[in-house]
Amino acid sequence: MKALELDRARQTVRAVEKPKPEPAEGEALVRVLMAGICNTDLELAQGYMDFNGIPGHEFAGVVEECANDHLRGQRVVGEINCVCHQCAYCRMEMPRHCVNRTVLGILNRDGAFAEYITLPEENLHIIPKRVPEEAAVFAEPVAAAFRIPEQVRIEDGQRVVVLGDGKLGQLIAQVLGLRTKQLLCVGRHRWKLDLLAPLGIATALDTDPIEPGADLVVEVTGTPEGLNRALELVRPEGTVVLKTTVAEGAPIDMSRPVINEISIVGSRCGPFRPAVEALALGNVEVRPLISATYPLTEGPAAFERARQKDAIKVLLQP
Amino acid sequence: MKALELDRARQTVRAVEKPKPEPAEGEALVRVLMAGICNTDLELAQGYMDFNGIPGHEFAGVVEECANDHLRGQRVVGEINCVCHQCAYCRMEMPRHCVNRTVLGILNRDGAFAEYITLPEENLHIIPKRVPEEAAVFAEPVAAAFRIPEQVRIEDGQRVVVLGDGKLGQLIAQVLGLRTKQLLCVGRHRWKLDLLAPLGIATALDTDPIEPGADLVVEVTGTPEGLNRALELVRPEGTVVLKTTVAEGAPIDMSRPVINEISIVGSRCGPFRPAVEALALGNVEVRPLISATYPLTEGPAAFERARQKDAIKVLLQP
Repeated sequence: MKALELDRARQTVRAVEKPKPEPAEGEALVRVLMAGICNTDLELAQGYMDFNGIPGHEFAGVVEECANDHLRGQRVVGEINCVCHQCAYCRMEMPRHCVNRTVLGILNRDGAFAEYITLPEENLHIIPKRVPEEAAVFAEPVAAAFRIPEQVRIEDGQRVVVLGDGKLGQLIAQVLGLRTKQLLCVGRHRWKLDLLAPLGIATALDTDPIEPGADLVVEVTGTPEGLNRALELVRPEGTVVLKTTVAEGAPIDMSRPVINEISIVGSRCGPFRPAVEALALGNVEVRPLISATYPLTEGPAAFERARQKDAIKVLLQP
Repeated sequence: MKALELDRARQTVRAVEKPKPEPAEGEALVRVLMAGICNTDLELAQGYMDFNGIPGHEFAGVVEECANDHLRGQRVVGEINCVCHQCAYCRMEMPRHCVNRTVLGILNRDGAFAEYITLPEENLHIIPKRVPEEAAVFAEPVAAAFRIPEQVRIEDGQRVVVLGDGKLGQLIAQVLGLRTKQLLCVGRHRWKLDLLAPLGIATALDTDPIEPGADLVVEVTGTPEGLNRALELVRPEGTVVLKTTVAEGAPIDMSRPVINEISIVGSRCGPFRPAVEALALGNVEVRPLISATYPLTEGPAAFERARQKDAIKVLLQP
């Protein structure tokens, strides 16, 4: 099958021929219809997670082989953590932290920048008919946005700042905007922020004066400096949700969170069910975020496009 | 009156004569009986908080002047944050985060390394008869330890690691040891850790193999590197309570808290009532922590002693 493989020497991917994967017991074989390039993929190409192989963890596909009649032939999206159900964290009902996990396209499991992937059947969620593939491919990052209200109580009237206007920042602003109207998305790109205006979400440039004292700041800048900025904007005893993973560490002034008794909450993958539902109901609008769609074989060009400042989401079509 | 003033050029204090302070309305004049040197005082001498004036925020004293008959003549300890009762945070019942606050010996208010201080009457707590001054002087750091169970739920059976065997680490280990028996205090000094053994608290040297996966890690090393170590020891979805304030920032690898969805909770001052009660009941044993007591006029020698590796708490007696 056709696939893209990391080319870490050149910090990109290269098109390769790979054997079609064989599903293990309990797994399905999924033909990929569409895949999305995430910032994590760009980081992987720069050495993050020390991953080698086929990246890609945002996808929509169709089940070609599996034991479950209910799934075969269906269009699906899939949770990316493949877990053991045996370890302490699985037993503590934190399967996404399974110590034996593989993660699609990130950790010990080939990903979705390929014609086919395998995933445990239990990871798959059927895509409702009204959701096209190019929207369904956003299920994984929308789920990551829905992780935040699982971790932090958000009440209407609370002041929320989303720091970052990129792919994930846009989705988080939309998802948290369902919970509070006191939401401000702060970014560095007027044109990206302007995509949120039709959705009724207030925006500001990072260079604008921004009133500090937010109850909750979501740090999703993708930069090492973002956390310090978030710590400036949050109120005492407030919460910073941290979504940014970057390859390098940054010097953080940790006296501020101590003096102001701020909680910093790391946040990673989230629940697919509300994400798929929000896509089906149109509560989250993803199509304006698509900057380009490339054939899978043009992976290097797609990665180059995804790195450009005027791109948001770049899709790959096998 | 005699007092010690910061000498930041020499990173220490110097003995000076100062006018006896005049209590404002609502304030009491307190004659200091005993004061304790905290790591924060050593940091202040190195430029932390950009404070000038008389440091010292751990004290026991006797009320010489005040409008309240109930307090006059009593031995007291005192909360260090002096607040406005008007600002948003005071109204949100977070007075310790008052934006107009002064803080005894730390922020815009002369401290307790002096013969006299003034503090709002509402800040004072009467010392029970059975508690001697050299124990009462620990009320402030013991209160800081009691802040942790206010912020984080601690249940018996949870695995707690206290990272740091210094002044505050010792007190935190004792206070949290009242909540869970699954507690380990990790430090760099065998002789300090050995003070905890008679209290039934398990200890380990930082160079010993320490099982990761703690539910809660309290970072109280006083070093910029402590947070990274805490992040190694805590389990996914666990909590790190951060007590260390250091003058400089350290590079923190923030992908670990994101991937493991760790909560980092800053923690500062705490409630005096349970602290004074624990001292009165003997639930917290502080006297083994006293390394030396100096007359106030020998402040520079006391600061030098407090910096030595074989010192824990150094007291000053006016």
